[in-house]
Amino acid sequence: MTQLLRVQNFTVSADGYGAGADQTLERPFGHADPRVLMAWAGATAGWPNRTDAGGSRGLDDYFTRDFSHNIGAEIMGRNKFAPSRGPWVDHDWLGWWGDEPPFHTPVFVLTHHPRPSFSLSDTTFHFVGGDQGDVLAQARTAAEGRDVRLGGGAQTIRTFLDADLVDTLHVAVHPSELGAGSRLWASPDELADRFHHEAVPSTSGVVHHLFWRR
Amino acid sequence: MTQLLRVQNFTVSADGYGAGADQTLERPFGHADPRVLMAWAGATAGWPNRTDAGGSRGLDDYFTRDFSHNIGAEIMGRNKFAPSRGPWVDHDWLGWWGDEPPFHTPVFVLTHHPRPSFSLSDTTFHFVGGDQGDVLAQARTAAEGRDVRLGGGAQTIRTFLDADLVDTLHVAVHPSELGAGSRLWASPDELADRFHHEAVPSTSGVVHHLFWRR
Repeated sequence: MTQLLRVQNFTVSADGYGAGADQTLERPFGHADPRVLMAWAGATAGWPNRTDAGGSRGLDDYFTRDFSHNIGAEIMGRNKFAPSRGPWVDHDWLGWWGDEPPFHTPVFVLTHHPRPSFSLSDTTFHFVGGDQGDVLAQARTAAEGRDVRLGGGAQTIRTFLDADLVDTLHVAVHPSELGAGSRLWASPDELADRFHHEAVPSTSGVVHHLFWRR
Repeated sequence: MTQLLRVQNFTVSADGYGAGADQTLERPFGHADPRVLMAWAGATAGWPNRTDAGGSRGLDDYFTRDFSHNIGAEIMGRNKFAPSRGPWVDHDWLGWWGDEPPFHTPVFVLTHHPRPSFSLSDTTFHFVGGDQGDVLAQARTAAEGRDVRLGGGAQTIRTFLDADLVDTLHVAVHPSELGAGSRLWASPDELADRFHHEAVPSTSGVVHHLFWRR
């Protein structure tokens, strides 16, 4: 069975931005509001951060609950893991996700700056350099036969697309515009030459774009 | 966490039939052709009976690969298990699915006629009477905290709907008409009073109808 590299539940604005400009510790999505962008997922029964029972079980929930389906590892960019840039000065920073990160697998954080691995609950973060192919090879080994999730942000997804290493993408497009920030694409049509493409509108207002290799 | 009773990937004709008339050993779906009804699922990468690599990874594949997601047991009607009716005369009949049934959990077959349980690979078939609530209680215990799939056929789903025991349904509606057979509904609108309802068209020609309790 092939081990796929999959983008799952990545959400962008109508003009293609996965996060806004001016990202900081206080505003990890910059001038974008992640509660607005991700409202489609937060309303579902499958949203891992739910604190109450309930939630919708329609189309959006299928995508939310597929997040961990057959996933054995994640690769994420440095900027998804931390607000800092450059050498690590604060090893007390353990990510945005508290004591119980939603990954539950090894996570490979792309960085040129070495740092020891550490674990929180059943998630272990590794800090790795090298090119995209090297990192994917490490993640595949760690995934033990299962697929690897490419967690973003937008720039990280673009570098793996440029290296032609991505097998499937699910990108939810929110109807709002951001105008600036970290951009995945100007239009989903940019991927049409290499991927099959379906666009599935949801009652929540987002359109789910599904891509798989031709 | 609640244990749901879920209908998954159940496919009916445009006029609501899950199988045709005159079901026999040779034609378990009667005058309906299951290859036509289920073509939307058979074309996907997630279809469990695939003998080749490949298959689509768009919307239809999300439903196909969700078939086993968090499922710990299945309940099915006698007519889904066997072409025979009445007392069991042939214990050599082990279902339609060969040595490797696609369930991989305990399966509870509804019948008034006792028969010993047996296992094929990691699927164990139990033969149970009693009312719908009793059977569901047994299946929930066997599912060990996970959900229970209600596998059909149409009549079986209707009896559990009549007992108000079904929590979610995914029903794929194929554009062909059958005119007779085992009928789930005259229209999906019949469930609108008790369930939220989304209808999601697929490029394969089926419309996926998703229901969850109000």
